[in-house]
Formats: sequence, C-alpha cells, structure tokens
Amino acid sequence: MYTLVIYDITDDMLRLRIAEACKEFGLVRIQKSAFLGRIDFQRRKGLRHRLKEVLGNNPGNIQIFLICEADMRFREMIGEPTGYEEEGIMFL
Amino acid sequence: MYTLVIYDITDDMLRLRIAEACKEFGLVRIQKSAFLGRIDFQRRKGLRHRLKEVLGNNPGNIQIFLICEADMRFREMIGEPTGYEEEGIMFL
Repeated sequence: MYTLVIYDITDDMLRLRIAEACKEFGLVRIQKSAFLGRIDFQRRKGLRHRLKEVLGNNPGNIQIFLICEADMRFREMIGEPTGYEEEGIMFL
Repeated sequence: MYTLVIYDITDDMLRLRIAEACKEFGLVRIQKSAFLGRIDFQRRKGLRHRLKEVLGNNPGNIQIFLICEADMRFREMIGEPTGYEEEGIMFL
C-alpha cells in the first residue's frame, strides 16, 4: 500500500515542518506539497500523529490517502517537476 | 473509482485554467491545488487530454491518481480548509 500526503498550508515554517515529518517517516516528495511512499501501518500511524502535532490549531489542511498497488498502476503524470529537484523530488 | 488530481504550477493564470478544467470534468476542489471526484473512464480520459492541452510545454507538474472505494475509506483529514470556501471547496 502507498501513502499519499497532500497539504495546503500558507505558513512557510509550518509547511517546512510538515515536509520534514513526511520525509522522516519515509515518504518522498513528488510535488511542492505532496509526498508519497510505501510505508506500513505503524509508520502511517506515527506519521498521522506527528502531522496532527505539528499542525496543532494552526490554519491548514492535510489529507492522507491510502492507495493500493493495483490503483497505483493507473497513476499518470503530465509535465515535469518544477524546481524541487535540489530537494530530492522523486517520481516513484 | 475516484480520480484525484494534484498539481504544482507556479503561473497563476495557468493554475486557474487547470482548476477550471478539473471542475468542468466533474471534480471538486479539496485543496488549493487538488481536485477529487467520482468520474468514469471516458471523463477521466477527456480530463487528461484537456490537462495536457492546457499545460502544453509550460513548466508545471500534474499527477492523476485513481483510488478505489475500498482505499478511499481510509482517507484521513487533519485541519480545516484554508480560505477556499468561497470557491466551493468541498470535502467529499
């Protein structure tokens, strides 16, 4: 199973902390505000807990999707990454 | 099946046109740069075609995910929408 995290957060510092949490729990950046990875239930649970902790009562929205292998085969991509290569953006 | 479109586009006008294409093909905004909806294969094909057309050779990245009903049950949300209510942001 894949875990996809997308977020919509205006505060730069908070957004950075969310990105760092995603990396720490084994996800890889696929867009400016999107991370993807194959992590197990325990890590996903830990990640969810951390994201809640980091966001706290600040404005912002984070959504976590679970995507199975079968569905992931239908993933499609249009265009190229937009300048996040230096941060290690990857297309899993 | 659900279709999730996430995009990473810096040009304001282009981003707006991508959002409009998503709406036109039946998706609903769930974040600033994310749309979701239950659309059939033909509409998804049409949407993909339109998104390619709109992005053209401009810099930007669009990713389309297919998510089945079973996986969608595990979707999780942290925080609240951040000021897109006026545009009709919805949590399907």
